[in-house]
Amino acid sequence: MMSFLDLVKKRKSTRNFSSAPVDRGKLERCLEAARLAPSACNGQPWRFVVVESLPLREVLAERAFSGVHSMNAFAKKAPVLVVVVTLPTRSPATFAGFLRRFSYPLIDIGIACEHFVLQATEEGLDTCWLGWFNEREVKKVLNLKKGERVHILLAVGCGVVEPTGEKKRKPFPEMAEFR
Amino acid sequence: MMSFLDLVKKRKSTRNFSSAPVDRGKLERCLEAARLAPSACNGQPWRFVVVESLPLREVLAERAFSGVHSMNAFAKKAPVLVVVVTLPTRSPATFAGFLRRFSYPLIDIGIACEHFVLQATEEGLDTCWLGWFNEREVKKVLNLKKGERVHILLAVGCGVVEPTGEKKRKPFPEMAEFR
Repeated sequence: MMSFLDLVKKRKSTRNFSSAPVDRGKLERCLEAARLAPSACNGQPWRFVVVESLPLREVLAERAFSGVHSMNAFAKKAPVLVVVVTLPTRSPATFAGFLRRFSYPLIDIGIACEHFVLQATEEGLDTCWLGWFNEREVKKVLNLKKGERVHILLAVGCGVVEPTGEKKRKPFPEMAEFR
Repeated sequence: MMSFLDLVKKRKSTRNFSSAPVDRGKLERCLEAARLAPSACNGQPWRFVVVESLPLREVLAERAFSGVHSMNAFAKKAPVLVVVVTLPTRSPATFAGFLRRFSYPLIDIGIACEHFVLQATEEGLDTCWLGWFNEREVKKVLNLKKGERVHILLAVGCGVVEPTGEKKRKPFPEMAEFR
């Protein structure tokens, strides 16, 4: 067990996955952490499809990360790909989002996925957020509905995380101020 | 120190703040957790303005949470209001977002704010995410720039969190599946 700040520091994206399989219990706890995430009006606009089995995973990865999306081809090696489905919602947040000109569910997806990723870190798993892939093909492969979107995929497994030092971030005074 | 899942379970929105001031060191660690959050192309499209002092906080709260926004009037009592400024970015993620028709910074804001909120929970502070307020007035009060937006405010303090039991969430099989 570690402090939350240590957990945050430990989390790093990996782009170098081994083929070692991932324990189902660990994945279930990651999903549980995501399940408990807060969301606007408690809308929970997500469904997590955990793709482990072959050949589905291979087909998914091939079609998600080819052509102009091959920047993320490393994810083809991940033993688990989580397809985070953003569900269409009809909550007060939908109306509020219309009035305020932004999509609350995107914020919700950010929260829930980071819960997943941080739990994965605690479980000793490595992850990578993926925001660049062929969404249309992903939707086809999983036979998703018209109004559903896939903004984020998560690659999960055991990886080689390069032992970099400090995270490269803006210095504190640039990102925060007290008034 | 507690497990991440216990931290997630402990986090609850409070809408009932006491006037007790908040320790500056605690706030700094919350900001540090947010600072270290991952973001698309490491764009870090955020600035956290922590409003503690009077009369600024009173003016801000009055103008943010009046009229049609008085649903969140409880936040006028919070000893700290964090204005999370979403910065305009020009990273590869901006172009990717254009192509994929969604705003990556909103996901990033979700991640960074939840880091803040979970660290606050670990520090024994209570919080509430606020997504419904008069953004135009908030921007005026803080003299923010034209391209900057404020999607989220965080109320922080010591509150009375009703001892509810389980969080109300969709059951596991409804939000997750293995394939």
